[in-house]
Amino acid sequence: MAPTAAEQHTRKAVGLAARDASGHLSPVAITRRSTGDDDVVIKILYCGICHSDLHSIKNEWKNARYPMIPGHEIAGEVTEVGKNVTKFKAGDRVGVGVMVNSCQSCESCNKGFENHCPGIIPTYNTVDLDGTITYGGYSGMVVVHERFVVRFPDTIPLDKGAPLLCAGITVYSPMKYHGLNAPGMHLGVLGLGGLGHVAVKFGKAFGMKVTVISSSSGKKQEALERLGADAFVVSKDADEMKAAMSTMDGIINTVSANIPMAPLLGLLKPNGKMIMVGLPEKPMEISPFSLVALNKTLAGSCIGGMRDTQEMLDLAAKHAVTADIEVISAEYVNTAMERLAKADVRYRFVIDIGNTLDKMLHDIPRMSHMCYTPSVFEPGSPLTYLIVCGSVIPK
Amino acid sequence: MAPTAAEQHTRKAVGLAARDASGHLSPVAITRRSTGDDDVVIKILYCGICHSDLHSIKNEWKNARYPMIPGHEIAGEVTEVGKNVTKFKAGDRVGVGVMVNSCQSCESCNKGFENHCPGIIPTYNTVDLDGTITYGGYSGMVVVHERFVVRFPDTIPLDKGAPLLCAGITVYSPMKYHGLNAPGMHLGVLGLGGLGHVAVKFGKAFGMKVTVISSSSGKKQEALERLGADAFVVSKDADEMKAAMSTMDGIINTVSANIPMAPLLGLLKPNGKMIMVGLPEKPMEISPFSLVALNKTLAGSCIGGMRDTQEMLDLAAKHAVTADIEVISAEYVNTAMERLAKADVRYRFVIDIGNTLDKMLHDIPRMSHMCYTPSVFEPGSPLTYLIVCGSVIPK
Repeated sequence: MAPTAAEQHTRKAVGLAARDASGHLSPVAITRRSTGDDDVVIKILYCGICHSDLHSIKNEWKNARYPMIPGHEIAGEVTEVGKNVTKFKAGDRVGVGVMVNSCQSCESCNKGFENHCPGIIPTYNTVDLDGTITYGGYSGMVVVHERFVVRFPDTIPLDKGAPLLCAGITVYSPMKYHGLNAPGMHLGVLGLGGLGHVAVKFGKAFGMKVTVISSSSGKKQEALERLGADAFVVSKDADEMKAAMSTMDGIINTVSANIPMAPLLGLLKPNGKMIMVGLPEKPMEISPFSLVALNKTLAGSCIGGMRDTQEMLDLAAKHAVTADIEVISAEYVNTAMERLAKADVRYRFVIDIGNTLDKMLHDIPRMSHMCYTPSVFEPGSPLTYLIVCGSVIPK
Repeated sequence: MAPTAAEQHTRKAVGLAARDASGHLSPVAITRRSTGDDDVVIKILYCGICHSDLHSIKNEWKNARYPMIPGHEIAGEVTEVGKNVTKFKAGDRVGVGVMVNSCQSCESCNKGFENHCPGIIPTYNTVDLDGTITYGGYSGMVVVHERFVVRFPDTIPLDKGAPLLCAGITVYSPMKYHGLNAPGMHLGVLGLGGLGHVAVKFGKAFGMKVTVISSSSGKKQEALERLGADAFVVSKDADEMKAAMSTMDGIINTVSANIPMAPLLGLLKPNGKMIMVGLPEKPMEISPFSLVALNKTLAGSCIGGMRDTQEMLDLAAKHAVTADIEVISAEYVNTAMERLAKADVRYRFVIDIGNTLDKMLHDIPRMSHMCYTPSVFEPGSPLTYLIVCGSVIPK
């Protein structure tokens, strides 16, 4: 008889979990599965904070499973591999992005778009194949099928590299897929945040002219002088917008707010493409004429496949593309979330899991409940839930 | 001193013109320019009636210049060529589509997208390079720069081939450009009219599975049995739509009405593309999620370049693709317009200009006005305008 999920989830771990829609993160004891034949066991050293983590812990997408350990920009070191694993060995510097499994056999998986698989298992807040709930990277370790693990090239620091696993692939994939990656092209990057600043860097890595489009001039100097953008257009400045009309081959639109699209589509040349990688809440109003008259494209793109993710990291290493980050301790995570909500970060928070998570746990004086499997916590923990093999049982 | 437009426009011609927003078409005397060095003179034998002709003559696009001679699906025979013309000679079977000139030197022109040239000269209702107004193909002859003339392969009848110059290239160009032209792909064709029925045929010519999507089942038998579509989905039938979810690589959307887009985008596979070739009047409401989640594309496309138009005709000849038409006499044109307004045609009216236009002119007993240049009409014509070298002078 096959082992039950409970029997498989023998590995103790810790993490930072939200318990409710307040989104407040605090320590939690969990279990991870024992090493399967295709699994890679990773000691997590860094984890980036993506804006979607904030949406998720506050249940803004109405799909929260608490307690929720967010985090899908995971960088760390391999500690153990299953017997079928060929790509990795203990000691390798690796990463895990937004998914930890898929059906691995559908048309999308076979084409390298595991991100489109109907059976995709996101890195956290999802029912895994064995019925447990996935926990993300705000945690000391994780066990992942090798297909969903990528290798960090030696020259990419793990802290600055972690955000590439979400922000990086999210902008790289559509640039590749829509042919916005050739020298001499003109790329617009709408919005200069976690995604946008990496898009600027990849645009320059591809040899493109890059123009940042922003609602205010606040980041102009930084865009031009530090990130290497070639030009800056303030979208609320009619003269600047007019001067930039019909000049861009493509725009990576990282903005998640509902903004008028017609003027932005007007920046595109004939056959130009605007790629949405953000998710505005309400429907967009699109004038058919703005697309039809000059063969323009409005496309969406969501992360990317595993092959492309490795390719993106390799290209990033070649061109020294990394994210601009602010490294924080685990203790600082709630403050970081508050600042993220105000866009007060340039451009990505990365939690120093390796050096600070354990310290935070030691600060917890007493634990009041045991997990089903032996917990790392002492009796007296303030945990509000019992966690059985990843599944959540409210107290 | 260069000759004036008046001096150049020495060639007498006749046509069917609308005089006002009633759109009623009646005979008119015009002039065409004498043969320039790069010009091809064409005796028009057939001209298709595009739905945009109806919009134009009724001034629904608020840009009408009356009298307006519509028609941009022109098929005929070369009678004379200018001294620089190398591609054509007298007697050649040729066609002219939606444009008769462009700047021929911009980025779009150099890439073969003359249709995107800011200096494009549409075949009718536009100020030409010499300041005259262009007149379309509901006329006995036309003089066109050779770049904007295409050759009809021998196996394509001129009557059934004429609509390919607008309807054909309009659907062919995006199929080529967006890669919806490979055997084994699944193409949806939304709307089965002048454009849609040709899209079905090109889809089959490319070896694709073709599904017609229509708001009712009225054309089902015809689509499957006569046009060779593989399947038919009624968009108002929830079960049929559900069964077709996520099955299509692309959809050519020929519908000019505002219809809910989300269910239609749901028919696309991941990375699927919906191409708009119609022009709904009002903005579309597009849910960002419907594009972003599975990397879908909403693109517009408007006609196509000259190189692609010739390529389209050559491919049409190879696969015996022509339009399904109803040939009408010039006299029938107003009735045809009334029927077109009710979508009562399968699928394109084509005016037999060669055999019926002159007869219509002879039926006009008396003409009350002379054109500036000697007119084919007698004094006493009912013309409401004086036409001087293509420019319109209200009486």
